Amino acid sequence: MQALLDNLRELLGPDRVLSEAAAMAPMLTDWRGRYRGRALCVVQPGSSAEVAAVVRACVAAGAPIVPQGGNTSLCGAATPDDSGRAVVVSLSRINRILAVDAQNNTITVEAGCTLAAVQDAARAAGRLFPLALASEGTCQIGGNLSTNAGGVQVLRYGNTRELTLGLQVVLPGGELWDGLRGLRKDNTGYDLKQLFIGAEGTLGIITAAVLKLFPLPKTQTTCWLNVATPAAAVELLNRARSAFDAQLTAFELVSETALGLVLRHIPGARRPAAASPWYVLAEFSDAHPAAVERWLADCLASGAVADGTVAASDSQARALWALREAISEAQKIEGVSIKHDVAVPVSRIPDFLCRADAALAAAFPGIRVVAFGHVGDGNLHYNLSKPDAADNAAFLACLPEVNRIVHDTVHALDGTISAEHGIGQLKREEILRYKSAVEIELMRTIRQALDPLGLMNPGKLPGPR
Amino acid sequence: MQALLDNLRELLGPDRVLSEAAAMAPMLTDWRGRYRGRALCVVQPGSSAEVAAVVRACVAAGAPIVPQGGNTSLCGAATPDDSGRAVVVSLSRINRILAVDAQNNTITVEAGCTLAAVQDAARAAGRLFPLALASEGTCQIGGNLSTNAGGVQVLRYGNTRELTLGLQVVLPGGELWDGLRGLRKDNTGYDLKQLFIGAEGTLGIITAAVLKLFPLPKTQTTCWLNVATPAAAVELLNRARSAFDAQLTAFELVSETALGLVLRHIPGARRPAAASPWYVLAEFSDAHPAAVERWLADCLASGAVADGTVAASDSQARALWALREAISEAQKIEGVSIKHDVAVPVSRIPDFLCRADAALAAAFPGIRVVAFGHVGDGNLHYNLSKPDAADNAAFLACLPEVNRIVHDTVHALDGTISAEHGIGQLKREEILRYKSAVEIELMRTIRQALDPLGLMNPGKLPGPR
Repeated sequence: MQALLDNLRELLGPDRVLSEAAAMAPMLTDWRGRYRGRALCVVQPGSSAEVAAVVRACVAAGAPIVPQGGNTSLCGAATPDDSGRAVVVSLSRINRILAVDAQNNTITVEAGCTLAAVQDAARAAGRLFPLALASEGTCQIGGNLSTNAGGVQVLRYGNTRELTLGLQVVLPGGELWDGLRGLRKDNTGYDLKQLFIGAEGTLGIITAAVLKLFPLPKTQTTCWLNVATPAAAVELLNRARSAFDAQLTAFELVSETALGLVLRHIPGARRPAAASPWYVLAEFSDAHPAAVERWLADCLASGAVADGTVAASDSQARALWALREAISEAQKIEGVSIKHDVAVPVSRIPDFLCRADAALAAAFPGIRVVAFGHVGDGNLHYNLSKPDAADNAAFLACLPEVNRIVHDTVHALDGTISAEHGIGQLKREEILRYKSAVEIELMRTIRQALDPLGLMNPGKLPGPR
Repeated sequence: MQALLDNLRELLGPDRVLSEAAAMAPMLTDWRGRYRGRALCVVQPGSSAEVAAVVRACVAAGAPIVPQGGNTSLCGAATPDDSGRAVVVSLSRINRILAVDAQNNTITVEAGCTLAAVQDAARAAGRLFPLALASEGTCQIGGNLSTNAGGVQVLRYGNTRELTLGLQVVLPGGELWDGLRGLRKDNTGYDLKQLFIGAEGTLGIITAAVLKLFPLPKTQTTCWLNVATPAAAVELLNRARSAFDAQLTAFELVSETALGLVLRHIPGARRPAAASPWYVLAEFSDAHPAAVERWLADCLASGAVADGTVAASDSQARALWALREAISEAQKIEGVSIKHDVAVPVSRIPDFLCRADAALAAAFPGIRVVAFGHVGDGNLHYNLSKPDAADNAAFLACLPEVNRIVHDTVHALDGTISAEHGIGQLKREEILRYKSAVEIELMRTIRQALDPLGLMNPGKLPGPR
């Protein structure tokens, strides 16, 4: 191990190999503080060639490799295990915007760019990079790629996978694969980039990418719509899509319980319309405001929407979005809860909420469900707690049983137990319950083929046989 | 081999195992008649379970397996080699529409459905399945998936890959992988379906899929626009995208040479506007016709468009599209030519045409270039001939040199030698010249890992070491 340290210092320079506990500490725990690992060192290469050299050195020494971007994983995907043998490879210094091709609508970026830096570079060229997340100022595009990040604009623009045209990757053997192509069509064999997107760093280290850009929307119209039920929200979604197609750029569901927490805990939050069991926050881009008004009037007349308001100004629109975005914060103030990041087919959202709510109420009387999320993608954040603090402490100990009920319900409806956040360490065992043996075996076959030594981010995703 | 035949007859019934030369003949040649193979038999399983049983029988006997859909490949991807040992697996009988979920905007189909049948089933549910190809009445969705088919609406809706949410696949060992999920977000490990899309049947046999649906456009506005140069066409593309975003659903480039062939050979074809070196056929969906008219007026005023016409009726729009769609037919009547299916970054289309035209004119004086295609995707059909029939016969013998010039030019501009059609047998050797050793090795590693016996569609795509 000392020989590997010496070797890495020679490759990168001594300043780029951190091995003292205090210097490494921020990189050895996740930002929620749920996982804590140990490492031989944290290295900070400055180029993809240096990443490749680091990987070759680790392979020669048999040391596990843990790639790390902004370290904002919600499932411990970037935290090493406690063997103390791992080399954490920080991508933070590999952070240049390599090119913006406005006519091709592409941007070429290194993995360590923050998501916000990518958004900014696109905007400076008069284009939109539509991926947007709460952690965008900190998370890095390499991590977004490795976790196939989602967010609020997936309805219109797709997940990170759909935004990616090309990748550059250091493979588990230390070879550099240059797939930095900016092509909309390329049918020349297996689409290798797909392997690395969402692979959580288990098949290689993404060092750069070519991403799609879009025209900047010129106008946005934001509405707050009262609906009686989740079924009414799903029907309204399809009505809005039929009328506005791709101009419908967000469609978020919020329950009265979720709104209530925001109104209670967030200073300045105000109820935007009459109370209702459920709300939809819808955003239309480049649609004529009068067309949105007409559509809303039709929805009100037919009873599809019980009450609704269209933001009359940017500040009103921001206030509506602030209500949606403050839910997580309000929940945190209210107290801890058991959270889920699930998705089902959009048509089955009402059924999921009905079944899961009933099963949980039966098993845990008095349980409080805070449900909200990207209904246009079938993706719900489904968070559970007891209103009384003392009750809640006991309830949190029931996490395995609660997960079982929620995940079994999701699975019965052909859904997924991780829509956006990935598997990491958090759901590594849980996923074995829901994937078929054939699928797990196929994943293992791929991993074994690309990383026969098992050194790439071990302990994340289901492991080798 | 006789034992395998007996075994297959027992599994499927004797009528579903064709082994007589006359019965097999249509399935042993490609539709252009360029490839001719031999086979032990052609089998017609009726379910995915039967496909799995066939694969297991072939594996036990060591017989190569060639999946075949509508047999419309342009690169020999569905034609067996001449060993006579292959079992051709026709998917034609596995052709049910399994489900349409209008609220989830998905359709679940078996692999043997024709593309037209999928489009029709979607339309019957008030939805659009946007994949559209010349061969849509014959080609099958399993083949579209296996070749990641493109077409004219990729600009708005993406390739087949982007239209796919889930797959069911019989793996090379005969296991059935059921990945028929209809989820917009699912981050639970490697996205295995991506492996099989565009793999040309070398990693398994796709037996069913869940595909995305979209709202049916309510209106379409079609324009024919004169532009002086390909560079002007690319600038116009971005101007149209900025103004209309996703409402711009097609943007096709046509050269005067291509139009001239149509006017000469296709009865009823009429010049839609003044002559120009280049034309753009643009289609806007759900945009207000007045907005398109205003945009065109601005383009004319600024000189971005030299002349232009907006179709005033559906029949005028169809006539404009007929000009574009008749190019292939007109070329066939004119005589044989050397065709290319290439793509470059959209921004480099002008450079590609300039460089390739010049290099070819220098090497082959008097050469005629017929260029047209999906400029919005960077994808050009670039077809070459000599105007004089006798000259052309000699020219056709120069195919390797012509390909070398075109493909080297494409490669120098970071493009691809196969944008839409795939590799198959046609470009299996050629692609080795342009892919890096690392990339070829990665493709071989995947193929070896999933199909260690090398029985899945051998001879297509670069083979094992």
